[in-house]
Amino acid sequence: MDQHHGSNPTWQETARLAQARRDGSIAAVEPAVPAVPEEPPWNVSALPRALLPAAQVAVTEAAPEELVAGLAAGRLRSVAVTGAFLGRAGVAQRLANCVTELLPAAALARARELDDHLAAHGTPVGPLHGLPVSVKEHIAIAGLGLNAGFVAWWHRRAAADAAIVTLLRRAGAVLYARTTEPQTLMHLETSSNLYGDTVCPFNRRLTAGGSSGGEGALLGLRGSCLGVGADIGGSIRSPAANNGVYGLRPTSGRLPLGGLAATMLGQEQIVPVVGPLSTSLGGIKMFMKALLDQKPWLADPSLVPLPWRDDRDWLAKGGHGHGHGHGARRLKIGVLWDDGVVKPHPPVTRALREVCDQLRGRPGFELVDWLPYRHDHAWDILSALYFPDGGAEETAAIDASGEPWRPLSRFIIKEQPGRKALTVPEVWAWTRKRDDYRVRYLERWNATAAVDGDPDTAVDVILCPAGPGAAPPLNHARYWGYTAQWNLLDYPALVFPVTKVDPDQDGALADYEPMNDQDAWNHRLCGLTPFPNNKKIKI
Amino acid sequence: MDQHHGSNPTWQETARLAQARRDGSIAAVEPAVPAVPEEPPWNVSALPRALLPAAQVAVTEAAPEELVAGLAAGRLRSVAVTGAFLGRAGVAQRLANCVTELLPAAALARARELDDHLAAHGTPVGPLHGLPVSVKEHIAIAGLGLNAGFVAWWHRRAAADAAIVTLLRRAGAVLYARTTEPQTLMHLETSSNLYGDTVCPFNRRLTAGGSSGGEGALLGLRGSCLGVGADIGGSIRSPAANNGVYGLRPTSGRLPLGGLAATMLGQEQIVPVVGPLSTSLGGIKMFMKALLDQKPWLADPSLVPLPWRDDRDWLAKGGHGHGHGHGARRLKIGVLWDDGVVKPHPPVTRALREVCDQLRGRPGFELVDWLPYRHDHAWDILSALYFPDGGAEETAAIDASGEPWRPLSRFIIKEQPGRKALTVPEVWAWTRKRDDYRVRYLERWNATAAVDGDPDTAVDVILCPAGPGAAPPLNHARYWGYTAQWNLLDYPALVFPVTKVDPDQDGALADYEPMNDQDAWNHRLCGLTPFPNNKKIKI
Repeated sequence: MDQHHGSNPTWQETARLAQARRDGSIAAVEPAVPAVPEEPPWNVSALPRALLPAAQVAVTEAAPEELVAGLAAGRLRSVAVTGAFLGRAGVAQRLANCVTELLPAAALARARELDDHLAAHGTPVGPLHGLPVSVKEHIAIAGLGLNAGFVAWWHRRAAADAAIVTLLRRAGAVLYARTTEPQTLMHLETSSNLYGDTVCPFNRRLTAGGSSGGEGALLGLRGSCLGVGADIGGSIRSPAANNGVYGLRPTSGRLPLGGLAATMLGQEQIVPVVGPLSTSLGGIKMFMKALLDQKPWLADPSLVPLPWRDDRDWLAKGGHGHGHGHGARRLKIGVLWDDGVVKPHPPVTRALREVCDQLRGRPGFELVDWLPYRHDHAWDILSALYFPDGGAEETAAIDASGEPWRPLSRFIIKEQPGRKALTVPEVWAWTRKRDDYRVRYLERWNATAAVDGDPDTAVDVILCPAGPGAAPPLNHARYWGYTAQWNLLDYPALVFPVTKVDPDQDGALADYEPMNDQDAWNHRLCGLTPFPNNKKIKI
Repeated sequence: MDQHHGSNPTWQETARLAQARRDGSIAAVEPAVPAVPEEPPWNVSALPRALLPAAQVAVTEAAPEELVAGLAAGRLRSVAVTGAFLGRAGVAQRLANCVTELLPAAALARARELDDHLAAHGTPVGPLHGLPVSVKEHIAIAGLGLNAGFVAWWHRRAAADAAIVTLLRRAGAVLYARTTEPQTLMHLETSSNLYGDTVCPFNRRLTAGGSSGGEGALLGLRGSCLGVGADIGGSIRSPAANNGVYGLRPTSGRLPLGGLAATMLGQEQIVPVVGPLSTSLGGIKMFMKALLDQKPWLADPSLVPLPWRDDRDWLAKGGHGHGHGHGARRLKIGVLWDDGVVKPHPPVTRALREVCDQLRGRPGFELVDWLPYRHDHAWDILSALYFPDGGAEETAAIDASGEPWRPLSRFIIKEQPGRKALTVPEVWAWTRKRDDYRVRYLERWNATAAVDGDPDTAVDVILCPAGPGAAPPLNHARYWGYTAQWNLLDYPALVFPVTKVDPDQDGALADYEPMNDQDAWNHRLCGLTPFPNNKKIKI
């Protein structure tokens, strides 16, 4: 696969350039990023805390909403906070391989500007004043690279900031770190020939998830408290789940997509969205509010003019869309234990059960079982519509440099049964199936009122697994159903941390009978996954 | 072209069936619909008033919001109002050929139910209680035909009501008339082999516009006061303009499209919308509010959860999105005199001038010129994306019955320079051009602040021609630019009546130089159009 045509670099040469640029950017951080052990343990989650000064640990482990409060009040300086995250991001890179480059010079210059502004005017420039925010690589920052995980695209440079970056800058954010993504962007892992594999800090034999796995691992190691990813099939949620942080896939039409590098631009049957990952729920809400308060729909005609709705009061007020608005009511939660295609691994089911057990004890909540509706059919639609050109653009972008196909690129582009180049009328036929599925699903949503005997309320939210298991071994994230389902429906979806795998509690499934080949495969995976007892790992 | 394969009817036989069904439905109206003159004058707009009893004229010429007020208060009975409109619609059909069928039995039964409900409960069933509403044929009514202007589809029957019809019924509307549409639905006229041409009641040598031309002519003759059309390139607005009534093309994602018959279902690059035509502005607003107050987004996942916004107060309050919200402000109107491709005929320009002259004298308004931005490029995008299969579905639907191609079907499907079957990547490329055009246009919108020297306000609204001229002679509506432009941009667009052609005022253009072939063609059309002096026509 090593090619050399005239003056064109080989893919390996390009990868070395990419990694040298990354390493150089980390070497420029001051004070110097501490070295990590040459042979780190499988679980490196406690290492940054051991390697960094206590003050730096305190700053980087604070919730983003606390940092913003301190920055706006002048109790914290952005230069100090940004420096703290630059250092910890450097450590995170060395432990989980999650960063494509750090931006110490630009970030600290901006931080200093913001500190000066606050000192001069006494007011912050915006709701994210001085907060360091990390950004996935394919989201453009003017003048920097934009490769979407393709070696052949590595030399491309962004002419302008992505629209979401513009909104972040206006809100006062400091952009200091860019994070890894997989070849094609279409893995639920983060594996590329430019940077290799991004790994899970809780067990480096496992994947950090993807495609925003750089963000996931960076946040999991607290090298960032708020970052931006993108999601067309689980790419924000899988890394959030695998790294124990929060991740939101907003509905499409909320946040602007302008300036994202990807193949198949102009495809609108299954659309990507950008959204936040954060170490706190407050960070997610702060991000959405800070951006939507800028009314991005006034500049992007594809967006819907809807403000961020923080409806914490609706339970008390009874003002919900489905209800009749008389007095307080309960939040009605439909629990999807199993999607009917692939049975979740025991720790996932235990996590669901723990959440339900906690909610059952509280007066404001009502739990009902939510039965799956043709999730296998949903995947048929998705896999036909993800690559309506049969993967031609991805194939061209991979083959242009001679780089090898990563296993999960091959899986999603070449090994899906429904995958082929479609004609325009075939795209319409699949789009009609998509729309019909969306209508049927919403009918079921509304019909829960009748099923449950309460004519006043459909469910308010579905609680479900974020994946078929905890983080799998590298190159094994082959079941997208638990996340991609909500992309097909274009529902907003939030992942939040609940628990970790515990081998003492999470045994084998009793009386397991495979439902189908995918299910059997996922079940075998459960046995393959090494579950280290986190408590026993020392550095 | 007369074909007869075995037991299949010829297209002429099907057309005779269609017309017999229509005529039978009108014959069932009681009291009998009055006969019209065997050779009616070119201008028949005054005939219904001359042919019908004064009480019937009074009811059918009332504004829909007045009728609803009377119906809700019990001053009017729905049976009487529905009967009045059934009779006048029958007259309108005989004068302008605008109806596919009347529904006297079903409408009067429903009207009686509503009257009984009000008598029993003292409250209306909804905001349109008892109001007769007309509906374009391809919008499904359960059990009735659904042909989209194709002879071959005439035998199709709707299994269920269209979603918009369900909303109308829930609001209390009485569905009593179905109206004509052109072959393919893709004309700005209303010409089919099932029913022939729908003509303009002010001059029967001219077109009623289209594709909702049946609605337009029916409303123009006051055989309806509120009707439902659909619009993908001007199909609500052209008939509103040609018949002197109001018509609104809402933004997509507002009103549900479920249950509309058309080709190319699943196409989403340029989407159709449904919307109202009315004899009053109040009717348009009432329609939108009555439907959106039902939160149709709870049943249709393609819709946006945005209520109807009646922002009459924002000028006084200064609470507009673009402004900073301090005190009262003016409505800033950008006037597009000419789209830079085809110069409007003199009566259109005079109408614009008359509106501007009236607005200039009022304190709450500010007028600025709005310069066109590449409307020719906009049409290139539209004409590529209207038929991405090269018109294959339309061709099949026309040819299935052996019916002849109507001239404007041929024009829009076979004679557009850019027309061809596209590959999926070609669709993406055009979609990117569409999105880029939308972004550039919005940049100009926002930039008017700078152009105009007022940093606080972009324009609020564009005032522009609803077409390149008044209603043209049959088969001459070949320039879509003035309406289709807003479909490409997906902006809401309202047509309202201003004036009529007046040969004494509307002379030839001075110093006319054609800008291009389309412009020259439109200019010649102006000379061809017979402008009768309405005042001189007697019945």
